[in-house]
Amino acid sequence: MRLMRLGEPGSETPVVESKGVYYDASPVTPDFEPLFWKSGGFATLNEALLRGDLSGIDVAGHVRRGAPIQRPGKIVCVGLNYAEHVVESSAEMPNEPVLFMKPANTVSGPDDDVLIPPDSTKTDYEVELAVVIGAESRYLPDEAAALEAVAGYAVSNDISERHYQLERGGQWIKGKAAETFNPLGPAVVSADEIVDPQALSLSLSVNGEVRQSSNTSDMIFSVAHIVWYLSQFMILEPGDVINTGTPQGVALGIGPEAYLKDGDLVELSIDGLGTQRQRCRQATR
Amino acid sequence: MRLMRLGEPGSETPVVESKGVYYDASPVTPDFEPLFWKSGGFATLNEALLRGDLSGIDVAGHVRRGAPIQRPGKIVCVGLNYAEHVVESSAEMPNEPVLFMKPANTVSGPDDDVLIPPDSTKTDYEVELAVVIGAESRYLPDEAAALEAVAGYAVSNDISERHYQLERGGQWIKGKAAETFNPLGPAVVSADEIVDPQALSLSLSVNGEVRQSSNTSDMIFSVAHIVWYLSQFMILEPGDVINTGTPQGVALGIGPEAYLKDGDLVELSIDGLGTQRQRCRQATR
Repeated sequence: MRLMRLGEPGSETPVVESKGVYYDASPVTPDFEPLFWKSGGFATLNEALLRGDLSGIDVAGHVRRGAPIQRPGKIVCVGLNYAEHVVESSAEMPNEPVLFMKPANTVSGPDDDVLIPPDSTKTDYEVELAVVIGAESRYLPDEAAALEAVAGYAVSNDISERHYQLERGGQWIKGKAAETFNPLGPAVVSADEIVDPQALSLSLSVNGEVRQSSNTSDMIFSVAHIVWYLSQFMILEPGDVINTGTPQGVALGIGPEAYLKDGDLVELSIDGLGTQRQRCRQATR
Repeated sequence: MRLMRLGEPGSETPVVESKGVYYDASPVTPDFEPLFWKSGGFATLNEALLRGDLSGIDVAGHVRRGAPIQRPGKIVCVGLNYAEHVVESSAEMPNEPVLFMKPANTVSGPDDDVLIPPDSTKTDYEVELAVVIGAESRYLPDEAAALEAVAGYAVSNDISERHYQLERGGQWIKGKAAETFNPLGPAVVSADEIVDPQALSLSLSVNGEVRQSSNTSDMIFSVAHIVWYLSQFMILEPGDVINTGTPQGVALGIGPEAYLKDGDLVELSIDGLGTQRQRCRQATR
């Protein structure tokens, strides 16, 4: 089952796709918000589908794909989770997951423009497997319990301004927080459709040139480990999003010429989760 | 004007205090949530008060004081913002504000128990002036505009586990994110009642022993500068909370014997914003 939100910004319709047919999910939930996940999420939708409570819709009439979750309770990110990306970042290999947060209002639709901040010189891309939490998770006992707490998966682009992130003092958040810095979607795909989250190809290109091409099998810390680990430090809640790290090939590792510029086209995809397509635009104050 | 939320966890009543009288704010808003701030906040409440739309209530009947904002859109924190605290932390004096985030679900009531994580050895306290944002703030032009975007102020305790924060690899979030790690309140006091946010005494004691005693005049970066600065990196939204840093006297600077233990009583207050009183308890898994 795949969740999407289709329509103009601020007035998206929640849509569920099952076996190739698209249904309007509005009778079950006004939106895919934290309350939706808290009250059953996919299970509730599945029951409604089985009862025939949802009407099919013609998705051709919808122009824009919104983020499948517009405002998560929180976005937690894992840094340096692919060995070759650690090397290209000139960072130390982590002994345990490196964590940071992004504000939830960085989320934008998978095909929305990415806005380059007015003074930015080093805006970078990061294709990542995003995990959506389905159950409150507090001090989980093991990795099996962690996987049970996962509702689904999505494509995420953890846009990063490297000068702000690494050269402005202190923590990474300064380079992770700008508007449109977390394109998400096009869908949240239910965990039961992803046989093995550690066997997904992921790739990203800029203006048609492949920059990142890897597989989640190369992660240093698995999805199961990350969710278990996070639950030792914070309470994860239904609808929370976890960005699980990016593989090698970011502009930081290539050189100054590789950073994103006004007009650039970024395309990224993950096996079974869909494709994003963003045009970069210079933000004005 | 002062906003409070009174009642048991999850069923607090929004209350406004004006000139010593307490009123039930429910007719204006179901809670002090982001939507309340977006739709006018203090101004809307003031109009309702002037029209006589709100009924006085007997606050003696309410046992518990909840956090005045239960679930901010985000909590952004400034680290190392008092010079003597920078020294006691063995950190470098910052050239510009050091930023990090806490999950919004760390917020608890001002008198609720603080839960020490099961394996924690270094749970610490931090009295801080919290700023509540009243208007969407994106690339603000100057510090005057920043002060205009401030709706009010509150007392905040930025509880921190120093081993998790500093010795577990990477960013600080690991030590800032546990349940109950951000007691907030008892009130959000409207900005018009605080003549100068840079002239407020703030203090904290543990078991009656004063540990922190300072004044917001000692901040390295002022409230106005912090709000302006943050708006250059992210969009601040109504109801967002900013913790503006803690003065010297934290356990990290005193020594191992000063960290919080099961049964400890933490009391903290800021001029004109009220007092918090928390009992520390050992969390179980």
